[in-house]
Amino acid sequence: MTDETHPADAAFAWLDAHADDRRRAGLSRQLRPRRADSDLLDLASNDYLGLARDKRVSGAAAAATLRWGAGSTGSRLVTGSTELHSELEFELARFCGAQAALVFSSGFAANLGAVTALSGKNCAIVTDAYIHASLIDGCRLSRADVAVVAHSDAAAAGRALATRRAERGLMVTDSVFSVDGDLAPLTELAEVCRANKAALIADDAHGFGVLGDGGRGAVHAAGLSSAPDVVTTLTLSKSLGAQGGAVVGPRKVIRHLVENARSFIFDTGLAPGSAAAALTALTVLKEEPERAGRALTVAVTLAERLREAGLQVSEPTAAVVSVRAPSPEAAVKWADDCRAAGVWVGCFRPPSVPDQVSRLRLTARADLTAADIDRAVSVITEHAPPRA
Amino acid sequence: MTDETHPADAAFAWLDAHADDRRRAGLSRQLRPRRADSDLLDLASNDYLGLARDKRVSGAAAAATLRWGAGSTGSRLVTGSTELHSELEFELARFCGAQAALVFSSGFAANLGAVTALSGKNCAIVTDAYIHASLIDGCRLSRADVAVVAHSDAAAAGRALATRRAERGLMVTDSVFSVDGDLAPLTELAEVCRANKAALIADDAHGFGVLGDGGRGAVHAAGLSSAPDVVTTLTLSKSLGAQGGAVVGPRKVIRHLVENARSFIFDTGLAPGSAAAALTALTVLKEEPERAGRALTVAVTLAERLREAGLQVSEPTAAVVSVRAPSPEAAVKWADDCRAAGVWVGCFRPPSVPDQVSRLRLTARADLTAADIDRAVSVITEHAPPRA
Repeated sequence: MTDETHPADAAFAWLDAHADDRRRAGLSRQLRPRRADSDLLDLASNDYLGLARDKRVSGAAAAATLRWGAGSTGSRLVTGSTELHSELEFELARFCGAQAALVFSSGFAANLGAVTALSGKNCAIVTDAYIHASLIDGCRLSRADVAVVAHSDAAAAGRALATRRAERGLMVTDSVFSVDGDLAPLTELAEVCRANKAALIADDAHGFGVLGDGGRGAVHAAGLSSAPDVVTTLTLSKSLGAQGGAVVGPRKVIRHLVENARSFIFDTGLAPGSAAAALTALTVLKEEPERAGRALTVAVTLAERLREAGLQVSEPTAAVVSVRAPSPEAAVKWADDCRAAGVWVGCFRPPSVPDQVSRLRLTARADLTAADIDRAVSVITEHAPPRA
Repeated sequence: MTDETHPADAAFAWLDAHADDRRRAGLSRQLRPRRADSDLLDLASNDYLGLARDKRVSGAAAAATLRWGAGSTGSRLVTGSTELHSELEFELARFCGAQAALVFSSGFAANLGAVTALSGKNCAIVTDAYIHASLIDGCRLSRADVAVVAHSDAAAAGRALATRRAERGLMVTDSVFSVDGDLAPLTELAEVCRANKAALIADDAHGFGVLGDGGRGAVHAAGLSSAPDVVTTLTLSKSLGAQGGAVVGPRKVIRHLVENARSFIFDTGLAPGSAAAALTALTVLKEEPERAGRALTVAVTLAERLREAGLQVSEPTAAVVSVRAPSPEAAVKWADDCRAAGVWVGCFRPPSVPDQVSRLRLTARADLTAADIDRAVSVITEHAPPRA
């Protein structure tokens, strides 16, 4: 480093200090690509039902890719909609008990699209404090008034909706929160929305496939999937083991999204192979509904066993189990030690945690065996930091 | 319809009036899913090199899906990075002549991530008036001061950068604009950025694969792909026929995006099959570099022939040819008539056009034959509206 910065290097000189700050705070991150033949025990992915590597699902994806091509070739309103996309939308809506569905290229894009197109300048958005980053970004893009209320506090949400200045109201929440796996008070939220003529958007990314009748999700379990004022967003990349996202809800909402959601209109359609994978995974889930309950049972067992070992563990209401760590550095070391011992766990640190508390994030899978659980518990407790 | 609205219907009652407005303005849109065996002549997709349906590309995608599974199973920083993603990033960077690359799940996500993570509160963003929706949304999310300057006006961009209050400066532009296919003044923009210690982000979605040496893109053609103050965003879903997007640039920029780009951190990784498709398409392009020039030649021929027939046609500098229509309704009818006659063309109307002028948007493909071009020209001119 010299004192004199070359003019070409001036534009990004600030990145160096920024990187140093993160390093000092123990918040550096790096990509660690996995091998196809990795023999790590996976407790880090969101493949809750074990379908990403199911031969029926990957086989259908491969066959569709050969038939339709590798890409959808354009935006959904031009050449990017195939019959596979329509069929997937029809089946998703039917499975969830809603009128219609719309497939996006990711759950992130589905959330951006739903929040922005269903709000706008004349709308007041009320959000739970712990919503997913993609919903937060949707709110930031919305041009609506945004009020953030305490986590899982339906009464506070009701007060914020009741005292809004804007004509329209919209409540935005996760159904199952991604970090701790806790459940939103969906019934109460829907009531305060209804009472205040506001709509409810619930992101069921972590509930769909795991909760509700045969994995129909947390919104279905709350009896809200066919409500005319409730919209559900989903991902196809977690329980369905594919890629993509979807919005499920009243027909007129879906029509509105087709014409107004910028993350739908200006994005390339989902690859045909991913649409086929999601469609086949949905069929497998319908044929083997016990997968949903199994993922939850594994999570509850994991949590109980880790709590018995003295760790600070969340109460799982879906397939996510979170274990608190004393610091970001301790969380990283703990996760690294587990990995070195053959068990892959997630490590969540700021800014990916709403309460700034670092933790291990374990995900249960329907296809984990009793022996897998034993091994995971043993490795995780063995490598726990002193004060965790 | 009754005068009394049921409380449950109140939340989305506003959507009806909104839909009526769009219908009256001739701006309704609807999805028209295509069949796998469609025999329409495709002049609407962005599959510029004809690689989406190339057997080598779809075969590699299918094989990777069978080997790696249908989905990446998690976010890139957890389980969603495979060796395929790393290899694709390495090869993209090398092909473009840049230090590093980062793959996102879409070009939309790549643009959101690059613009937001490389700007922020202490930054002034200057944008071309005609940038893509995803770049606009990135600017809206950025918390930076945003100044919009006239289309393709590097001098105005320079003035805006020179008079900024914020410490840092960032110019954001498309390299090839998506609607008319015209080229940005990249050399001049890079000069005014350098002179003002500002960075340049160029979205090369429509240049990559078509322009520059062997399809290395418009940024490479301008000699800017290895500049320390220039960042290129790409899509994998146009010339490469797959799905996904990428950011290509200096290593420290890519490292910064890994740690800071929300649309990277909080999104599921690209499906392995799509990564493999893009990787193989890149190999095909390296082996058959003439595809790039061929796409451009087809576009120039199409434009000349249509202009000779009396239509108002853009000057193609890449694979996009745009033909003006007198109104949104006329554009829709024209496109519908062409489709009924076997030729599929894009129809762009507000809000997808920056100047509010509706048009047909034709895309050239490297694999169109002379007979295809004859047929396209004949059908498009035959169905042209009276005043087009």
